[in-house]
Amino acid sequence: MNEFDMIKQYFQDPQLHFPHPNVRFGIGDDCASILPDENHELVFSMDTLVDGVHFLQTSNSFDIGTRALCVTLSDLAAMAATPIGFTLALTIPEAHSTWLQGFSQGLAEIAQRFHCPIVGGDTTRGPHCVITIQVHGQVKKGKALMRSGAKPGDKVFVSGDLGDGAGALSQVLENPLDSTGLAQRYFQPLPEIEFAQAIQSYATSGMDISDGLLQDLEHICRASQVGMMIDPESIPMSADLIDKVGYQRAMKFALTGGDDYRLVYTAPDCAHGIQIGEVVAEPKSVNVSGLDADDLLSTGYQHFR
Amino acid sequence: MNEFDMIKQYFQDPQLHFPHPNVRFGIGDDCASILPDENHELVFSMDTLVDGVHFLQTSNSFDIGTRALCVTLSDLAAMAATPIGFTLALTIPEAHSTWLQGFSQGLAEIAQRFHCPIVGGDTTRGPHCVITIQVHGQVKKGKALMRSGAKPGDKVFVSGDLGDGAGALSQVLENPLDSTGLAQRYFQPLPEIEFAQAIQSYATSGMDISDGLLQDLEHICRASQVGMMIDPESIPMSADLIDKVGYQRAMKFALTGGDDYRLVYTAPDCAHGIQIGEVVAEPKSVNVSGLDADDLLSTGYQHFR
Repeated sequence: MNEFDMIKQYFQDPQLHFPHPNVRFGIGDDCASILPDENHELVFSMDTLVDGVHFLQTSNSFDIGTRALCVTLSDLAAMAATPIGFTLALTIPEAHSTWLQGFSQGLAEIAQRFHCPIVGGDTTRGPHCVITIQVHGQVKKGKALMRSGAKPGDKVFVSGDLGDGAGALSQVLENPLDSTGLAQRYFQPLPEIEFAQAIQSYATSGMDISDGLLQDLEHICRASQVGMMIDPESIPMSADLIDKVGYQRAMKFALTGGDDYRLVYTAPDCAHGIQIGEVVAEPKSVNVSGLDADDLLSTGYQHFR
Repeated sequence: MNEFDMIKQYFQDPQLHFPHPNVRFGIGDDCASILPDENHELVFSMDTLVDGVHFLQTSNSFDIGTRALCVTLSDLAAMAATPIGFTLALTIPEAHSTWLQGFSQGLAEIAQRFHCPIVGGDTTRGPHCVITIQVHGQVKKGKALMRSGAKPGDKVFVSGDLGDGAGALSQVLENPLDSTGLAQRYFQPLPEIEFAQAIQSYATSGMDISDGLLQDLEHICRASQVGMMIDPESIPMSADLIDKVGYQRAMKFALTGGDDYRLVYTAPDCAHGIQIGEVVAEPKSVNVSGLDADDLLSTGYQHFR
């Protein structure tokens, strides 16, 4: 199968390459084109998933596809943006039709759910599977939810249970083919696109939790020039997670585990989400009641350590 | 060096991450943002370069950087778009500072030249170097140069010498560190952004030549539902190339070699460029006077053959 046939068969499928009012043209020319609504700006984010680092090639390619698009779309949720379309750079050693079929169906599952069709990309052969996705969305001009607006006196909220992403990892490593139970939070961390729309008018700052709550809160503190007092006992965790790994380990996962793709945001007040702390003027760092921050802060996920 | 330090040191350098009037915000939040001018649409294209397939890791990383950004920007030239900014997904085995320094300087050289700053991306560790770049540009609404507008009676033009890209390859494979002479056309195939602006109002269809003239002309014929008669003797080739490989091989490179990143376009008439043939109604394929097309058409570069 040549490159053009592969694109046609797996990536121009109408389940994946469907019309969107803001997409002028997609696959088939030298560029794709997006026209944001009037008074809107385009926002976009790029994420790479490497076989053996961010996923296991032994997982179902459907699950790899859902995860790849979910984690990238989460950055649009982080800005309270509405999805428009995504591009895919897929590097694979061989064009296995079963793998490609499952992968494109996984992408399509999430693309349909969040009205975000594929609009372009590049497929290349290489010794190792590498998946890069760029998502594009729009937000009213000047209304993107930034990391930089938190103010002393604001409260700190999260959108849902934390720790499941990290808690799922041991299950995934043990049985990469099982995407049920906790592992579903790993393979389908559904981006909180709708939730973000609901809090947009209240929130002063926000982001998605990908590297671990504490490390990501540090990003908000640095960008907003504030500090935070976090009450660990108010952090929501699933009964599944606590049952599986115990309260202490669940708390560690919730604080530092990463891969949750929930939203964390600040607001003077907000009817949505769960309050986990407060924004303070000093010290300009994240403090967790009853815990030594140094022990925890160094454990967020980082490449190239 | 962690991921954040690497981004700060090599990719937030002001030579590479400079302001652009259409970029609202770039690196530093969950998304970057672009706002096209009024009555303009955003166009974008993504290209992947894999070590050992599209470049040699033994080349200077500066040259790898210039080539990576040039070949991707060429897709903006193909649409007659003006560059705004690019995103970079870089997967590398180790964070070698000398390599990263050269690579980012190579990117900066081209970014400065075409007013196209870096606006976001992702850096990951993986066993093999893979570089994905997405370029973003703008064009007046409905004025993008598509592959689909060629009409019988139009003439076929190219923007400059063909064959140098393929001709340079043997030199590059022999001495990956030499980027002079013909090899310069391989490492810095400067995108024809300005040339495209000049022909935009005349051209009925167009694209950039990346896979080889004949294969790329087939794309225009298919999208426009036309055929073409090409006169090989009118195809411009450099004296350097003919001196080096002889006329016959130079012609083969010019017709099928790929990697040239010149523009090919159709127009009723045009003061710019070199005419190489004509658009015809039938047969709906590319015909080269005096040559058996079947011999040539199968040789454009393809992955996954």
